Amino acid sequence: MDILRVDLGSRSYPILIGQGLLGERSAFEQHLQANDVLVVSNTVVAPLYLDSLEASLRPRRVVATILPDGESHKTLPTVARILDVLVANRFGRDCAVVALGGGVVGDMAGFAAASYQRGVAFAQVPTTLLAQVDSSVGGKTGVNHPGGKNLIGAFHQPAVVVADTRTLTTLPARELRAGLAEVIKYGLICDAPFFAWLEAHIDSLLAAEPMALAHVIRRSCEIKAQIVGRDEREHGERALLNLGHTFGHAVEAATGYTQWLHGEAIGAGLVMAAAMSSECGHLTPDELERITRLVARAGLPTRIDKVTPDAALTLMRMDKKVQAGRIRLVLLRGIGDAFVTADYAEPALRHTLESYLG
Amino acid sequence: MDILRVDLGSRSYPILIGQGLLGERSAFEQHLQANDVLVVSNTVVAPLYLDSLEASLRPRRVVATILPDGESHKTLPTVARILDVLVANRFGRDCAVVALGGGVVGDMAGFAAASYQRGVAFAQVPTTLLAQVDSSVGGKTGVNHPGGKNLIGAFHQPAVVVADTRTLTTLPARELRAGLAEVIKYGLICDAPFFAWLEAHIDSLLAAEPMALAHVIRRSCEIKAQIVGRDEREHGERALLNLGHTFGHAVEAATGYTQWLHGEAIGAGLVMAAAMSSECGHLTPDELERITRLVARAGLPTRIDKVTPDAALTLMRMDKKVQAGRIRLVLLRGIGDAFVTADYAEPALRHTLESYLG
Repeated sequence: MDILRVDLGSRSYPILIGQGLLGERSAFEQHLQANDVLVVSNTVVAPLYLDSLEASLRPRRVVATILPDGESHKTLPTVARILDVLVANRFGRDCAVVALGGGVVGDMAGFAAASYQRGVAFAQVPTTLLAQVDSSVGGKTGVNHPGGKNLIGAFHQPAVVVADTRTLTTLPARELRAGLAEVIKYGLICDAPFFAWLEAHIDSLLAAEPMALAHVIRRSCEIKAQIVGRDEREHGERALLNLGHTFGHAVEAATGYTQWLHGEAIGAGLVMAAAMSSECGHLTPDELERITRLVARAGLPTRIDKVTPDAALTLMRMDKKVQAGRIRLVLLRGIGDAFVTADYAEPALRHTLESYLG
Repeated sequence: MDILRVDLGSRSYPILIGQGLLGERSAFEQHLQANDVLVVSNTVVAPLYLDSLEASLRPRRVVATILPDGESHKTLPTVARILDVLVANRFGRDCAVVALGGGVVGDMAGFAAASYQRGVAFAQVPTTLLAQVDSSVGGKTGVNHPGGKNLIGAFHQPAVVVADTRTLTTLPARELRAGLAEVIKYGLICDAPFFAWLEAHIDSLLAAEPMALAHVIRRSCEIKAQIVGRDEREHGERALLNLGHTFGHAVEAATGYTQWLHGEAIGAGLVMAAAMSSECGHLTPDELERITRLVARAGLPTRIDKVTPDAALTLMRMDKKVQAGRIRLVLLRGIGDAFVTADYAEPALRHTLESYLG
């Protein structure tokens, strides 16, 4: 078992990574004090892992609530349902909420934990690659609004993240590919050697080779934990983690959160961020080509049909990084060197969108 | 103008207290940086003060949303309406939400500010005595659930509290009396001389004499600011501020949040907390009599009809201070000396409820 630490003072917590952790009582013993636990899962994951997790959580009182699957259900009414279950079971402020599933389950369970009785304990048991490398770490929780992605939510750090790599063996190939988008993102932001490693090992990853997956989960969590530890509330550096997301979120919202998985939209978003960086003269054509090729080899879209540039621009203006009406973008000065800027020409942005959308 | 400071490190903020502050641009200039401001008010307060506040907030872009009046509307769907307005106006993370009204408006506006884009700036402009002495200070925000009071919410500190004492001149007498319940509470918790001052000046307060009101607002905010500064998230001492509230919340929930104002329920709750303290041998009959008399002189109920002890007990078990299934109570060792305890005999609690309810 690997143990990484997210360093946030009194809100610090460990990320446990290993095969079969979900079934081990010791993974939860030390970090989850609560006697009453609500496990939040969905209709796809619960049949596979809920029994095993419940056994690991006993002798605590364990109640489970099973949500419908998919990003289109990541809404305030679904969170209200979780809150109803907590109230109906008379859980007190000393209870805990445990998310068993992917990013959607984690985001909603986390927001419910943040809001119930003004905040109760929370643990993440991510079962997708995307959740293990990204969404389960860092404390961002929330739901979508018809007007935009993740517009409603809270920062609420978990008490522990238990990433059981064995769950990836049951992960559909499409979900595995979606997770690779966030992995590629970490290389692009700050780790050129890791990006090169991904270029060399992408086929092993697509084949779900355990050693390769364990490496990318560990390295991804390391990078994310470092950045979050330095900037928990995204006043600066943490915004780099949104590379590709301003584009990707617009794609998701424009297609009603049903056509593309989050990671797929981020795949195309990374290519658009790279293309925009190239438009602005920050990135060479060769670098853009390397990035586009790796995204494509990961089985992710590199352009998006049926979304107009105008629709995307309207949605991008709802991005949480907008300041004084100006869309701030995460761009690349090179592979492994991301930065945030509002200093770009509008026509370059429009041209980028026209080249990759529609 | 009086300025008090709530000391919470990077989340510290001032409480400004004075006549006519709501109409003064300077009250907001320094503490509210946002260019886009949503004012949240209700149908009773907005006609009186919204124009004046909007003028003080300009040249910022100001949008207003007017909620129905009353505790029965303090629900998650009403907060969702505030969030819809923020999204519809394309407000960014650099916007601010300003609450203009009493505790209900402040609690909902604050929870919306806490949840929008995972947290935007927030200011309180309380227009009731209760909000000026209690609910606008300390960062507790949230909504009720059919299963209990304030069960859903967040800690979200304001950037500034602007308490315009002139708004109390338009406050209905019933609302003024309700606010006095929280004022009496501060004396009971930790300031016996203040309690004696209230006994001597209750008639001036009921007559809404400005000097008397200014004194109680300042002293109440001082006490609350000190306690919140030492224990922001209610891990210990802050629970004392809930004196009378475990009883009072049960009364409110049992009567559907429509029959009694919050402060009225707290008035009866203070008497029940004192009676329970007396049952347990902590308080003399004379002290109980002084407390009961002051609550009655303030025009507040000292017992509650049509709520059964069983209904109250069931609701008290949903209180946020419940630990390991045990209702923790704030009791009194004397006037000015409150403490939290789970060490009491169940029959004493039942006897207290039977004496004051039903």
